[in-house]
Amino acid sequence: MSAINLAIVGVGKIVRDQHLPSIAANADFKLVATASRHGTVDGVTAYTSIDDMLDAEPSIDAVSLCMPPQYRYEAAYKALAAGKHVFLEKPPGATLSEVEDLEDLANKQGATLFASWHSRYAAAVEAAKSFLSSTEMKSMHVIWKEDVRHWHPNQEWIWQAGGLGVFDPGINALSIVTHILPKAMFLSAGTLEFPENRDSPIAADLHFRNVDYVPVHAEFDWRQTGKQSWDIIAETAAGQMVLSEGGSKLSVGGELKFSAPEAEYPSLYRRFAELIKAGKSDVDLAPLRHVADAFMLGKRKFVEAFYD
Amino acid sequence: MSAINLAIVGVGKIVRDQHLPSIAANADFKLVATASRHGTVDGVTAYTSIDDMLDAEPSIDAVSLCMPPQYRYEAAYKALAAGKHVFLEKPPGATLSEVEDLEDLANKQGATLFASWHSRYAAAVEAAKSFLSSTEMKSMHVIWKEDVRHWHPNQEWIWQAGGLGVFDPGINALSIVTHILPKAMFLSAGTLEFPENRDSPIAADLHFRNVDYVPVHAEFDWRQTGKQSWDIIAETAAGQMVLSEGGSKLSVGGELKFSAPEAEYPSLYRRFAELIKAGKSDVDLAPLRHVADAFMLGKRKFVEAFYD
Repeated sequence: MSAINLAIVGVGKIVRDQHLPSIAANADFKLVATASRHGTVDGVTAYTSIDDMLDAEPSIDAVSLCMPPQYRYEAAYKALAAGKHVFLEKPPGATLSEVEDLEDLANKQGATLFASWHSRYAAAVEAAKSFLSSTEMKSMHVIWKEDVRHWHPNQEWIWQAGGLGVFDPGINALSIVTHILPKAMFLSAGTLEFPENRDSPIAADLHFRNVDYVPVHAEFDWRQTGKQSWDIIAETAAGQMVLSEGGSKLSVGGELKFSAPEAEYPSLYRRFAELIKAGKSDVDLAPLRHVADAFMLGKRKFVEAFYD
Repeated sequence: MSAINLAIVGVGKIVRDQHLPSIAANADFKLVATASRHGTVDGVTAYTSIDDMLDAEPSIDAVSLCMPPQYRYEAAYKALAAGKHVFLEKPPGATLSEVEDLEDLANKQGATLFASWHSRYAAAVEAAKSFLSSTEMKSMHVIWKEDVRHWHPNQEWIWQAGGLGVFDPGINALSIVTHILPKAMFLSAGTLEFPENRDSPIAADLHFRNVDYVPVHAEFDWRQTGKQSWDIIAETAAGQMVLSEGGSKLSVGGELKFSAPEAEYPSLYRRFAELIKAGKSDVDLAPLRHVADAFMLGKRKFVEAFYD
């Protein structure tokens, strides 16, 4: 099979930091074009709209959609309608309903739709999943606290309605948790803190449980300065499990069990190539569904205004 | 086939007004027990918990769950785990995730799960669906405005987080709209008005569109006194369609096309019996998914306090 001709839509920081090196290192893909209002990639034909790009470059086989989620449906629909395979950055859309619609279209078109969750490919996630399936879990505590000023400086879209606020990183935690838990969890209560000048929450405190009343407590906060926390701690019959550093390090009972260098995006592109070759889609909406549940069920609390 | 032995959990106003007469009039069902903290039905064995009822009455084949949505998962899980068929009042749960979990369990158990949407069985809904599929729709306007003091006096649960507020009636409109639209719609923008002393919205203004940019504008308001509005108006190539009175009356171009007496709950129980006989489930989450999308994507606005 010759290389898959790939185009990127929405050339921003995540594309430069993660997508481009991963694509360059993967022989299955050849980057042939970009579409972006402002961003371009050296040596790659650049367009400013996906329509122009799809018209001008019929050889494109697949597109990676990396613009903010509010604008993703449109582009995904056009690409699928043109018979292209589609890679969706996370979150896969601004609403659950639109992603359901895309899934139907991908099935009709026989095209691959991949709703990617990069944190699921963090180095120690599979080891954590395997550990939890081998023991009895008593409780889980998810602590995802980071400094939004450092990680998302002046990104206005993230604060707009639909931008998800602190759930933008929090959904990464949820993508890991929903993957490693042996039984499905669901929200029983939660609080969302909105800065009084913003339409998206800056913090969330969420209480989930599974059918056996095993509690999962998640704390997301964007006001963390100093040490950043991306940790999942489970109390189990076989000792305390700590999945730390965003899923890259696993310890049990204080002993390091697994650690490996970060390689999330290279894994995502390997997975995308596999799906295309197998003629399959991979659209797991569970992380976004939990976020929507949190907005629907959570209490709203207003906190002091936030300025970048 | 002998009658299906049915139990009701959560005996309140909707049960007395709608479920009991519909069950009494349907030869497929025999009401054999109830479980409710306070409510009972004359001549029917009453329990105060579903656990006690399921233990004491092994002959129960099916249960109708009519308590507030925050408490529905628990009872549904127990009933399905005991091999019973389950009828869920609307909305089917407090979160999307829990209903997905119930659907998995029903499939495993070979039991019927019916997530009911009574407004879909309003008299003129099928006629409206058929009309819309025969023409080109230009736009739709959904006006669902009623007086909460009249319809839900002192119902505290409806104002609590997870009680959905004005989406409790609004989801009825959404259940009709998602059924009659030829193409899926999804939210592009919205505003939710919260009374400053309540955790659920009293009004919502929602802008949906489908893939062809056909707009669907929905207005839900609980502050409507005087004439109540439960209308869906569509501008089409074949004239203006008005589906009024909660789906019971259809006019096109000012001419009455269809009207029949209200019979939503008798239809629901007919459908439930059909599903049980066919060994099938019917769980369409689209209406609740749109509500969750509205909470996730909608702007929050605070308005004056509401007192019953």
